[in-house]
Amino acid sequence: MNLDYIKPNEWSIIEEGFDSSHVKASESLFSIGNGAMGQRANFEESYSGPTFQGSYIAGVYYPDKTRVGWWKNGYPEYFAKVLNAPNWIGINVYIGNEQLDLHTCKNVENFKRELNMKEGWLSRSFTATLPNDIQIKVSAKRFLSLEKDELGAIDYSVTLLNSDAVITFQPFLDSGITNEDTNWDDKFWDTLSVSQEDQRAFIQAKTMKTDFYICTFMESQIFNNEIQLNIKPEIDKASTHITFSYQQKVDKGDTLSIHKFGGYTVDRNHDKYELVTSAKSVLDNTVASGFSELLEKQKEAWSKIWDMADITIEGDVKAQQGIRFNIFHLNQTYLGTDASLNIGPKGFTGEKYGGSTYWDTEAYCIPFYMATKDQSVARNLLTYRYNHLEKAIENAEKLGFKNGAALYPMVTMNGEECHNEWEITFEEIHRNGAIAFAIFNYHRYTGDFSYIPEMGLEVLIGIARFWHQRATFSTNKNKYVILGVTGPNEYENNVNNNWYTNYIAQWCINYAIENIAKVQAYYSSDYTRIMNKSKLSKAEMKEWKSVADNMYFPHSDKHQVYLQQDGFLDKELITVSNLDKSQRPINQKWSWDRILRSPYIKQADTLQGFYFFEDHFTTEELERHFDFYEPFTVHESSLSPCVHSIQAAKLDRMEQAYTFYLRTSRLDLDDYNHEVHEGLHITSMAGTWMSIVEGFGGMRVKNNQLTFEPKIPKQWDAYSFKVNFRHQILKVIVNQNETHFELEGNTDLQIIVNGKTVTISPNNLVTV
Amino acid sequence: MNLDYIKPNEWSIIEEGFDSSHVKASESLFSIGNGAMGQRANFEESYSGPTFQGSYIAGVYYPDKTRVGWWKNGYPEYFAKVLNAPNWIGINVYIGNEQLDLHTCKNVENFKRELNMKEGWLSRSFTATLPNDIQIKVSAKRFLSLEKDELGAIDYSVTLLNSDAVITFQPFLDSGITNEDTNWDDKFWDTLSVSQEDQRAFIQAKTMKTDFYICTFMESQIFNNEIQLNIKPEIDKASTHITFSYQQKVDKGDTLSIHKFGGYTVDRNHDKYELVTSAKSVLDNTVASGFSELLEKQKEAWSKIWDMADITIEGDVKAQQGIRFNIFHLNQTYLGTDASLNIGPKGFTGEKYGGSTYWDTEAYCIPFYMATKDQSVARNLLTYRYNHLEKAIENAEKLGFKNGAALYPMVTMNGEECHNEWEITFEEIHRNGAIAFAIFNYHRYTGDFSYIPEMGLEVLIGIARFWHQRATFSTNKNKYVILGVTGPNEYENNVNNNWYTNYIAQWCINYAIENIAKVQAYYSSDYTRIMNKSKLSKAEMKEWKSVADNMYFPHSDKHQVYLQQDGFLDKELITVSNLDKSQRPINQKWSWDRILRSPYIKQADTLQGFYFFEDHFTTEELERHFDFYEPFTVHESSLSPCVHSIQAAKLDRMEQAYTFYLRTSRLDLDDYNHEVHEGLHITSMAGTWMSIVEGFGGMRVKNNQLTFEPKIPKQWDAYSFKVNFRHQILKVIVNQNETHFELEGNTDLQIIVNGKTVTISPNNLVTV
Repeated sequence: MNLDYIKPNEWSIIEEGFDSSHVKASESLFSIGNGAMGQRANFEESYSGPTFQGSYIAGVYYPDKTRVGWWKNGYPEYFAKVLNAPNWIGINVYIGNEQLDLHTCKNVENFKRELNMKEGWLSRSFTATLPNDIQIKVSAKRFLSLEKDELGAIDYSVTLLNSDAVITFQPFLDSGITNEDTNWDDKFWDTLSVSQEDQRAFIQAKTMKTDFYICTFMESQIFNNEIQLNIKPEIDKASTHITFSYQQKVDKGDTLSIHKFGGYTVDRNHDKYELVTSAKSVLDNTVASGFSELLEKQKEAWSKIWDMADITIEGDVKAQQGIRFNIFHLNQTYLGTDASLNIGPKGFTGEKYGGSTYWDTEAYCIPFYMATKDQSVARNLLTYRYNHLEKAIENAEKLGFKNGAALYPMVTMNGEECHNEWEITFEEIHRNGAIAFAIFNYHRYTGDFSYIPEMGLEVLIGIARFWHQRATFSTNKNKYVILGVTGPNEYENNVNNNWYTNYIAQWCINYAIENIAKVQAYYSSDYTRIMNKSKLSKAEMKEWKSVADNMYFPHSDKHQVYLQQDGFLDKELITVSNLDKSQRPINQKWSWDRILRSPYIKQADTLQGFYFFEDHFTTEELERHFDFYEPFTVHESSLSPCVHSIQAAKLDRMEQAYTFYLRTSRLDLDDYNHEVHEGLHITSMAGTWMSIVEGFGGMRVKNNQLTFEPKIPKQWDAYSFKVNFRHQILKVIVNQNETHFELEGNTDLQIIVNGKTVTISPNNLVTV
Repeated sequence: MNLDYIKPNEWSIIEEGFDSSHVKASESLFSIGNGAMGQRANFEESYSGPTFQGSYIAGVYYPDKTRVGWWKNGYPEYFAKVLNAPNWIGINVYIGNEQLDLHTCKNVENFKRELNMKEGWLSRSFTATLPNDIQIKVSAKRFLSLEKDELGAIDYSVTLLNSDAVITFQPFLDSGITNEDTNWDDKFWDTLSVSQEDQRAFIQAKTMKTDFYICTFMESQIFNNEIQLNIKPEIDKASTHITFSYQQKVDKGDTLSIHKFGGYTVDRNHDKYELVTSAKSVLDNTVASGFSELLEKQKEAWSKIWDMADITIEGDVKAQQGIRFNIFHLNQTYLGTDASLNIGPKGFTGEKYGGSTYWDTEAYCIPFYMATKDQSVARNLLTYRYNHLEKAIENAEKLGFKNGAALYPMVTMNGEECHNEWEITFEEIHRNGAIAFAIFNYHRYTGDFSYIPEMGLEVLIGIARFWHQRATFSTNKNKYVILGVTGPNEYENNVNNNWYTNYIAQWCINYAIENIAKVQAYYSSDYTRIMNKSKLSKAEMKEWKSVADNMYFPHSDKHQVYLQQDGFLDKELITVSNLDKSQRPINQKWSWDRILRSPYIKQADTLQGFYFFEDHFTTEELERHFDFYEPFTVHESSLSPCVHSIQAAKLDRMEQAYTFYLRTSRLDLDDYNHEVHEGLHITSMAGTWMSIVEGFGGMRVKNNQLTFEPKIPKQWDAYSFKVNFRHQILKVIVNQNETHFELEGNTDLQIIVNGKTVTISPNNLVTV
């Protein structure tokens, strides 16, 4: 762990004491979002110290011109980037003539920041002595409304501690913002209009090239000791910003407050010519009721989310805080109501990685959303890929594939590839497998087959075609081989026969064939439509089958393990425990070639296959592979510890499982990877959820039944979680002695616990 | 071949007829240089059509900020780029008020360009009708003086064909130039002063960051019908340029001419505060004698070069033109007098590739310079690498090596790495081997061992240390392996056990050990100095030896060939002849992953090893490897055809050898690779020389003797070449029936011809 300043607390993330070296990390950790928009925890008032300003609107992106040292055929010329959006939270604060800026204060005391996860708000308070020796106390609270997802609200107050003074609040809107992560320092926003109406202001802007139109807006109320004042602001309007200046003489001991309401209306949801009107309507419907009432609604909305999604852990505050932090941020990032959105790896907490969708969604996030939301949410995530199928086919064509073969992009916002490292973009093709696996997983969990005839089968056909064409026949091996790939372990590039890739390729083909047969048998009109569209022949399917049936898998007879790739055993097999600590993390200490020729594994690769296809292997096989590969694994991907935690738990290695759990759940809180200032690792947070529910809880779905093999780390007294399984909600409480099951709903549910069938009746606690 | 507009001619490169689509290609093909500076064949007068302006000064570079999409540890932050230098050739021409611009003329006739290689000058003539209907005839001739290498001269004349007119010549200097190949569009030159003195002008400028100071200068003379006029020019002086305006009323039928003299003085050769003074001195010593006398001296200087370096071919004009074009450009690029300079892959003909030194110098250029110049030239090229040894050690340290291991950069100007593709920069490590091989080759050819104790042994030790550390022991194979490399065939990246790399690594270690012993035995004070400096122990050398003795070489028992790398046989082995022509060149048609998993070979790789280490293998082995690999070779590197030509000749496949010869010798003239507009392939031109002397002539040095196995393509009547062998000059003339040898000097020379000893006496033709 690299940072240790967050106070352990079951429901809140708390920072105490002002340390400017923590500002950027805290801006990430205390980020707030409501699925439609989100922002880093930047200060409302001006701050001249190191800061990373960020405000983001879901689905609004910019196609930045690619930057590359040496061009390779097949790279995208442009690709989508997460886009910093106009700032609406800013409030310049003047005490007398002195601007409040924590970086220039003579002293800052009692600084406290709290992200209240239970209720969904961020607060900050401190006392400060300004350069002019005036002492003030500041309290600020803000939230992005879950109920009205175009609106955010801020309550910002200043109390004069040692002097009378004129206080000036200058709430502003600013569309003259920049991105940290641009390739060519291009301007991304074109400001169209800056306007004002009474206490309200509006800036309309559009993104260059993508032409997303948005309106950012604000309205403010001023209070002296909680009594609303009627101050007519001075207005400063310029080409890309507008500032209202509210000035008030305030007595020593008194408190001047501003309630600022603001947000975005976006042409993804409104007519682009109606954005100001829509913004007015948002303000009309909310501001009058006031900050407090909006906050009450926020608490209610979060309460509903927690009611379903919460995981409790007793006896281990840090573990409890960790899992809630993960669940909270997942819900801030994606709520599942819009099939055109997805779960960005940094959510609304930073710009890094660009694009919003990785294989993380299918491999790590879908189980969480399936179990804690209505199943339509997971279906929306699958539909997102169906909607991108044409672009995945175009993407494959650019790389020389044909006949409807689909290669989904490694990173995307709109279906187009957003990345240009050849070893990733062109070679990390296993991503296609995760997309097929998610269809399987959705059907396995929800029992809803309808997605497959309606959409999924076309995706499966495109993917099967890709694998068929991508595999080549080696006369030398008399088998099909897949050459030149990067597996999930990105610390190997351009390897031959990555076992995970070959295995999932084989599985994809078989799964596609199986589902073609099912659709043919039971959904004949869909079958006809799909066959007409795809022009899939029996002969082609026979070729697929030949590839799947004759796939090569590298194996070591000596070690009795599948080899991660051809030639793995030729490496110097020195385990991580024998690697000097000064060399870690290797991705910061070593040049790339050295990483590549080392045996070190960034994240589960062969073991990822054992996770997905658990039923295909015995526990002894898992153990052998775990013992072979984990000692070489440096876990330098955020996606690594969760899978290892699940598998360690399965192997009854509870101490190791617990260590991996802490690492995955507190990855950002404790900044294991030295990079929390860039934003949080949102997608791996769903892996944390899996490591409790699937790892410790041992939950699986087999033959349309939930099964459990509950275990508990010795550090915990108890833990509980709920899952939504086929429209019934099952609560599971595990303590050191027994497991309780509780069911909401009307009908009995048969589950399997430690291999035995248990019938749970609604509202009737069953203890096993 | 893609272009076919150059007229076949034994001594000149000739273009007839104006075609604006050929301008950029001709700017490359007709480039001129004198080793110290060079320039593309840009027009003197303004040209508004597509053009690539370029003027270059040897050794003057700029450290551009690296551009990269995704950073990898170990990449250089900055690297040197070939730098476009201030323009001194420009002459704006006005006829009346109309500016001459071939892109806007009503018509252009009798356009002819000639690069006279025998005499070292470039000329151009045409008649044109201007938009104002005035018809003119223009003749221009220019050269960069070999004798005074800071000076160039232009004779530019305009004849009025159908009208009297005022003609204005505006010779200018311009330091406000840009580079085509910049990473960030940075400004590279800082202009320090613009000054004028009578008919002379000077611009002093320095490069940003590298602080190379230069002065570009000009002086002009005006003639009417060859009678010098005394016109006082109007002067336009601005921050980065200075223009002299000479105006003269000229009668129909008369000719107004300007002789412009200009060039650069550079602080690599002068005190930076004396550059204007030095420029004046250049002008003082040359202008007065006039254009014609300077041109006569130019002819004499080129005559001396040709006397030694010329290769004649009888009966095949295109083949003759090709080889002279290659020899001419090599001599324009590098004359060998300055050990801080080297042979850039594009010479003075373009910016592409940046940096000046690749392994091309050692692998391809040294034989040409050894045989056609004084042997000090080759020694200077070796000294260049010795001078960069400390930086090569630093470069290796950046990649995790230690204890004086040296990795020479892939591309460099000053010893620092200039490239940042991990698969090249970090992995194409065989370049180290070529540097050691050049030391061996120099000693083999010249017999001069002194370079090794004085400098070379330290280089060999650094290189041996690198290989020792870079190889790792595979317990699986019970051999040392070299993992994660790119061989000479850059269409494979990050492969294991590239045979060429493993072989040259083994050879380097053995060669270093052998030379340590020699130096110990015969140069004890050098030995002591080097051992003290390198701290090399017997124990370390023993470890080296263990690596060399136990090196792994991939081999196919079935095919009885060494495998280019592990796993090569798993590819789909479809030969190039079975590849659809529409797919070629694959580097323009295919995405990188597709190239990598294909069997296609960019240039000799295993066969490059058979070329370097010919004596280690039987002819039968060569034949087997040639037959196995050549059918997969696409020759998309300029360095490929020459080696294959040599080996085809050795295998008596003369038709194939001839085809490869034409391809290497006319690569640029016929634009085989669709890229001549970017500049010429200078380093591969030395390979063309090798394909005649070593390929057809069969020349080798064995046991301190020249040996020959002369062959001749059936398309030729005869060919001849000269080599400087250990201070004696041997001329070889081969025809369809016999070979003649002629020797300059005082002592007899014993050579081996087709296995038999032949004694050649000076000035006595011997026929075999």
